[in-house]
Amino acid sequence: MAAGLHHVVVIGAGFGGIAVTRGLERAPVRVTLVDANNFHTFQPLLYQVATAGLDVADVAHPLRNIFPGRRRARVKVVVGQVTSIDTGAKTVGLHDGRCIGYDTLVLAAGAVTADFGVAGVVEHAHPLKSIDDAVALRLHLLRQFERADASSAFEAGALDVVVSGGGPTGVEMAGGIAELYSMVLRDDFPHLPVDAARIVLVEPQARVLAPFHPDSSAHATDRLRKMGVAVRTGVWIAEVRPDGVTLSDGARILAGTVVWAAGVRANPVAEQLGVELGRGGRIPVAPDLTVIGLPDVFAIGDIAAVTDAEGSPLPQVAQPAIQGGRHVARQIGRRLAGAATQPFRYVDKGAMATIGRHSAVTELPNGRRLDGFVGWLAWLGLHLVYLMGFRNRLSVFVNWCWSYLTYDRANRLLSRHDLDERREVP
Amino acid sequence: MAAGLHHVVVIGAGFGGIAVTRGLERAPVRVTLVDANNFHTFQPLLYQVATAGLDVADVAHPLRNIFPGRRRARVKVVVGQVTSIDTGAKTVGLHDGRCIGYDTLVLAAGAVTADFGVAGVVEHAHPLKSIDDAVALRLHLLRQFERADASSAFEAGALDVVVSGGGPTGVEMAGGIAELYSMVLRDDFPHLPVDAARIVLVEPQARVLAPFHPDSSAHATDRLRKMGVAVRTGVWIAEVRPDGVTLSDGARILAGTVVWAAGVRANPVAEQLGVELGRGGRIPVAPDLTVIGLPDVFAIGDIAAVTDAEGSPLPQVAQPAIQGGRHVARQIGRRLAGAATQPFRYVDKGAMATIGRHSAVTELPNGRRLDGFVGWLAWLGLHLVYLMGFRNRLSVFVNWCWSYLTYDRANRLLSRHDLDERREVP
Repeated sequence: MAAGLHHVVVIGAGFGGIAVTRGLERAPVRVTLVDANNFHTFQPLLYQVATAGLDVADVAHPLRNIFPGRRRARVKVVVGQVTSIDTGAKTVGLHDGRCIGYDTLVLAAGAVTADFGVAGVVEHAHPLKSIDDAVALRLHLLRQFERADASSAFEAGALDVVVSGGGPTGVEMAGGIAELYSMVLRDDFPHLPVDAARIVLVEPQARVLAPFHPDSSAHATDRLRKMGVAVRTGVWIAEVRPDGVTLSDGARILAGTVVWAAGVRANPVAEQLGVELGRGGRIPVAPDLTVIGLPDVFAIGDIAAVTDAEGSPLPQVAQPAIQGGRHVARQIGRRLAGAATQPFRYVDKGAMATIGRHSAVTELPNGRRLDGFVGWLAWLGLHLVYLMGFRNRLSVFVNWCWSYLTYDRANRLLSRHDLDERREVP
Repeated sequence: MAAGLHHVVVIGAGFGGIAVTRGLERAPVRVTLVDANNFHTFQPLLYQVATAGLDVADVAHPLRNIFPGRRRARVKVVVGQVTSIDTGAKTVGLHDGRCIGYDTLVLAAGAVTADFGVAGVVEHAHPLKSIDDAVALRLHLLRQFERADASSAFEAGALDVVVSGGGPTGVEMAGGIAELYSMVLRDDFPHLPVDAARIVLVEPQARVLAPFHPDSSAHATDRLRKMGVAVRTGVWIAEVRPDGVTLSDGARILAGTVVWAAGVRANPVAEQLGVELGRGGRIPVAPDLTVIGLPDVFAIGDIAAVTDAEGSPLPQVAQPAIQGGRHVARQIGRRLAGAATQPFRYVDKGAMATIGRHSAVTELPNGRRLDGFVGWLAWLGLHLVYLMGFRNRLSVFVNWCWSYLTYDRANRLLSRHDLDERREVP
């Protein structure tokens, strides 16, 4: 490690943090990449971990070997939680007292689940932002079935699920759970009324996938209904209770599982910068993605308030983070070479959401839409290409092929410890 | 479920319990298979889960789809812990108050780790009998590295490992950890003195793999030493402390990790039978494998005190359990047909142990031995064939090929929760 080199500290090893670190591989800098986990999470496939289709190791990649060989010598991975940032002294403080000085800081810490003040979300709903979330949700779903199977009196709603939020995550979760129920758990638990279990998707706006074209929303709604998902639009969840939810129209839905995919806010580490934050706690940035008033600090991805040419906020998905990371790496290189920074230009590459087996909606930037099976093939290929690391691609491909051919899900394991509810991840 | 059919209750879904249940597929009986987990564990490969080579889902198979289609209708899987057996009323009681009546009972609950009264084993050592054990050990090993990487003062012995017990499990663990260190963690943590880390295998008898031919033991010792494992024979562990072990000769070894592969005893559920138990808490059985004095109860595998033709106890590995399970299924069928039971005859199919990459010792029943690479290929093939479920075979094969080609281990993931030592599995 060449201590004299310009030192870039990157907070967060999501799509943005990995992109900026990779982009700096050949720059005359050393990079410290800080994350609370020792792995990168491929968030778009978390819902498949939650629905027992994929292993944890399929959607996570160890950080310490993303940068192999000699390149790794200039990238240091630090596993720890950032608890403070001192932009005057130019240091980052970790939970265990470690302190890291920086020349340039890149905030790429992403987003966390937002409960929007709805009572009971933290206590009773399952978010889906991390691997721990996905595993906790999977164990909870399986535990509901094992408990129902073990009890003589069947509890109403025990197997029912409410998914809050009809964005891509909510649509994918509802579809994934419907498939898990109809293709796997119905056979596994012949004595339980699995066919009668209700899966309800609740979306406050007038249609699911609201940012997509209305035809995509209609296609998704149609597919979900055919899979047995009840789609409720124009209502929202007013309260989450231990046994279900209360909707904004006063209706109560009994449900043993509530999935909270209703929205996110910026990672609260943003507050450490001491600048006034924008909507959703996002960090205001200049056109070159430096934080307003802090030229040595960049912010990218879900933690930054970046807008497109029309002034609309960028979607909180992988592409803005990846493109932002590459942009910031280039700007750091330009500055070191004495050049001025350039403004960030986001290139829309489209949007997609999968609705169970064989179906997805894909919207290309030219306005073309791919629905159904073709959209699903596009979704499949794109996610395989972007999955980090060849090993993960191979294993995901094997798992997918297996699930596709057999309608099976391998990862539905519950140990005696998992069955103990006191150990349920809060 | 035909309630009038003869009801066989099988306790334990290990190799023995699965074999007896499969053997009864075509018999005029209904079977209830009881296990604390909802999956079968392929115990011979647990050490690869512990050393980050395999996923949990590779060595575990969901019980509810082992018996697919119509056959499943007569097999009921019950997930629960057996806390009582009433051989008078012919019932089995579970931890949650459920009570299951039986016509014939098969005890196949296997073995648990025995500490042989050594102080500190329960508190400070890692056993390797279950998936939870293997995952806890893996997380502990990775955590030791992350902690050492995070601290400025390197703690002596933090990365060192003592493996207690030079049987197949201990030999495989020591070899697996040595490979994990030299092929993966050394590259992941360039700032840590990984090459200086000591891995010590402690075996009380005069040689490791004592039940094998002395040439096999010599080969294993030689291979382990070449991999950097210190093999200590003729001494045993007198005490396990938070920072290491004290040997029987008074020597102290500092070690951040102690693996307890020193031995097992029968699952304590055996005590519920109310019969006098044999050595290691094993259940005394008649030649037909019925429990002495309880003709409606069979015991197979590690929980039963079965001897071979020479009167020696059978090895506590998969083969005696599988063969015992098949035998018991046949005897239940014979009884229902009005025939007398037959004595169990164990067919020795040999023994094997792998010592890291490219090497294993395999002993065939004809006395032939395969060492080194040929032995390793035999080991590889046999374990793939016996791995339950095609999906697991495929995934294990992919993982193995990947590890083989790249020296990589995919499953070295630690989440922020895993890093929190308070959550360490006790």
